[in-house]
Amino acid sequence: MQSTKDDEQQIRQMVDTWLAASKAHDLPTLLNLLADDVLFITPGNEPFGKEAFAAGNEQLPDMEATIDIKEIEVIGDWAWMRSFLRVSFMQPGKDPMRHSGHILTILRKRPDGQWVIKRDANFVKPESGTA
Amino acid sequence: MQSTKDDEQQIRQMVDTWLAASKAHDLPTLLNLLADDVLFITPGNEPFGKEAFAAGNEQLPDMEATIDIKEIEVIGDWAWMRSFLRVSFMQPGKDPMRHSGHILTILRKRPDGQWVIKRDANFVKPESGTA
Repeated sequence: MQSTKDDEQQIRQMVDTWLAASKAHDLPTLLNLLADDVLFITPGNEPFGKEAFAAGNEQLPDMEATIDIKEIEVIGDWAWMRSFLRVSFMQPGKDPMRHSGHILTILRKRPDGQWVIKRDANFVKPESGTA
Repeated sequence: MQSTKDDEQQIRQMVDTWLAASKAHDLPTLLNLLADDVLFITPGNEPFGKEAFAAGNEQLPDMEATIDIKEIEVIGDWAWMRSFLRVSFMQPGKDPMRHSGHILTILRKRPDGQWVIKRDANFVKPESGTA
């Protein structure tokens, strides 16, 4: 049986994979890191699932993103994570649009050992002072 | 050993106690339902803890609140809950200010058996069309 530290490390690797796939517009990899019944909770929207995530992701411009993982708590096949995300969306001929915000994520370990996102309370929004 | 159903029921009772204490401005009861290291994550603020919660709560007007618990998942001494909260803050001589929003909460069972709030990602904000 593996240790909680191993799980923490696997969650950090999953986050790295997520950011790299976001940057590469690699939607299949992103969808593979979501539970089938995932829900994203975001400001001003009703909670949405995998299909709506996929539809929204198709429309995202190129981006740079960094994430600061504040804490991870592993409880068996469940975990939760608190993080702070910064994203810059590229705009040809203009300054990037900077978004940032806190995220509280609930993760689940799949039977195949892969950690996936189950619930994601995501406060990322445009930084004040930018478009 | 008690069942997950018992824990779910105790979490629902804790939420009822929370709402009643909020309405009654009963700060000691509210603080007793928070983990010492609780963090609230809300739109446009840095995450804040127990002291800032207490300071903010002192200034709240009379209110009516209802909560719709969408799901509760119990994992041993941990649990998470997704809910939707509606609050009306009373204003003498004026219509109540209506706030509402989704909440993702992480709960912990204390050694004394009481479920308390550990992390609370709270999207409650003024409803559009009201002050």
